[in-house]
Amino acid sequence: MKFVVFFVATFLVASQCYGASFRSFPLQMPTGYGDGASHDDVRCASWRLAVESLNIQSFETIPEECVAYIANYIEGGQYQSDSKTANQQVFFYARELQVQDNDVVIFNVDGTALSNIPYYSQHGYGSEKFNSTRYDEEFVNKSDAPALPETLKNYNKLLDLGFKIIFLTGRLTDKKAVTEANLRKAGFHTWEKLILKDPSNNQKAQEYKVAERKKLMQQGYRIVANVADQWTSLRGANKAIRTFKLPNPMYSIQ
Amino acid sequence: MKFVVFFVATFLVASQCYGASFRSFPLQMPTGYGDGASHDDVRCASWRLAVESLNIQSFETIPEECVAYIANYIEGGQYQSDSKTANQQVFFYARELQVQDNDVVIFNVDGTALSNIPYYSQHGYGSEKFNSTRYDEEFVNKSDAPALPETLKNYNKLLDLGFKIIFLTGRLTDKKAVTEANLRKAGFHTWEKLILKDPSNNQKAQEYKVAERKKLMQQGYRIVANVADQWTSLRGANKAIRTFKLPNPMYSIQ
Repeated sequence: MKFVVFFVATFLVASQCYGASFRSFPLQMPTGYGDGASHDDVRCASWRLAVESLNIQSFETIPEECVAYIANYIEGGQYQSDSKTANQQVFFYARELQVQDNDVVIFNVDGTALSNIPYYSQHGYGSEKFNSTRYDEEFVNKSDAPALPETLKNYNKLLDLGFKIIFLTGRLTDKKAVTEANLRKAGFHTWEKLILKDPSNNQKAQEYKVAERKKLMQQGYRIVANVADQWTSLRGANKAIRTFKLPNPMYSIQ
Repeated sequence: MKFVVFFVATFLVASQCYGASFRSFPLQMPTGYGDGASHDDVRCASWRLAVESLNIQSFETIPEECVAYIANYIEGGQYQSDSKTANQQVFFYARELQVQDNDVVIFNVDGTALSNIPYYSQHGYGSEKFNSTRYDEEFVNKSDAPALPETLKNYNKLLDLGFKIIFLTGRLTDKKAVTEANLRKAGFHTWEKLILKDPSNNQKAQEYKVAERKKLMQQGYRIVANVADQWTSLRGANKAIRTFKLPNPMYSIQ
């Protein structure tokens, strides 16, 4: 009953805050999977798992019937728990290593170090098509994003262990000042490098990150871990000794 | 309410059928993640996601507090839905290809083509340490495993599209006859090859599968997809144009 009450409450709150982009949908739809599980939530959970396990490699917007499910996932506690578990695994792995002077852990920025939930909660949790101008104006340029709390905890623990931190982001170099300001404001007080993308660089996300990691290795760094919410940050060559996928069912960067 | 009733029902049924390996646990434990989500289910869902997204690379047994959660996941409909979504993604990808004569799709056997839920449901859904003698005696040698229904559907569709199917399994060559008999009985009526492991081969799972895929490529096959429930089947070199991870939170093969 608690679950039902909780879900209805979340649904009501969500339907208030979505604004124009919110579409309600029938909660009960047959899936043919038996008595207890005949609703969209089951299928939306499968869709989310397929994204997180890389069976779905790209999507433009989340499925329309999954908006309330994703809102509930993000705001209801499961997302933070998933984020915590992923970050814990980074730490459990890292603390077993003999730290060397040139050891780095790479973190992505948006959706990994800095939370863009404040933006996405106002834009349908991924159900609106991404608009980079609006994202920059309403989110990036304000330098006001909070840290993803579990990433910040992990970041501090990794620094304590002696690892250097490198932020590698698809944000363009003209966002360097606002990004630095935001990272500091959110509590990320130190880093070895903050790598942003040159506006003249036409590489796709994965290709760009592979190339930047190659440069880091040529500079003598050992990339012990690579932490990101997008598989495009974690795939391809020079990917680090281990990669860690933070949850993100809201968007897909190619 | 339906959810609660369903969960309690599943729990009661599960507690009957586990036998000695079943341990009950408190359903409500604080996680600090807010009102509605303060129970083990949230953490067990995070653990499962970490396994499926490769943040946890290996485990010997599932966490003790997650037995009822995993039982409910497997038997309650979500597992079948996840299996369906993963298999659908294979088909959606494959149907866009121009099929060539030497195109193959690789399927793993246990937990991918053949369901070992009948075995694991009698052995704590992964909470008992794996016993290969018992697994062979009670499961493999009986040739009686049902197909994973969504894999069988997908298999038939891929054959219709013109793809050849290769089964690549860690089962040893002395299990060839019982495996062939079981595949046929379960509805897998044709295959290009069934590759089993030589008993003298000491390679670990991933190394063995990389080597076998290399042989297939040297024989002129194009591996368009590789479908398995274990990441060790899907990682390393020669891994196919695309890989697809079927759900399996019960065990981890190294």
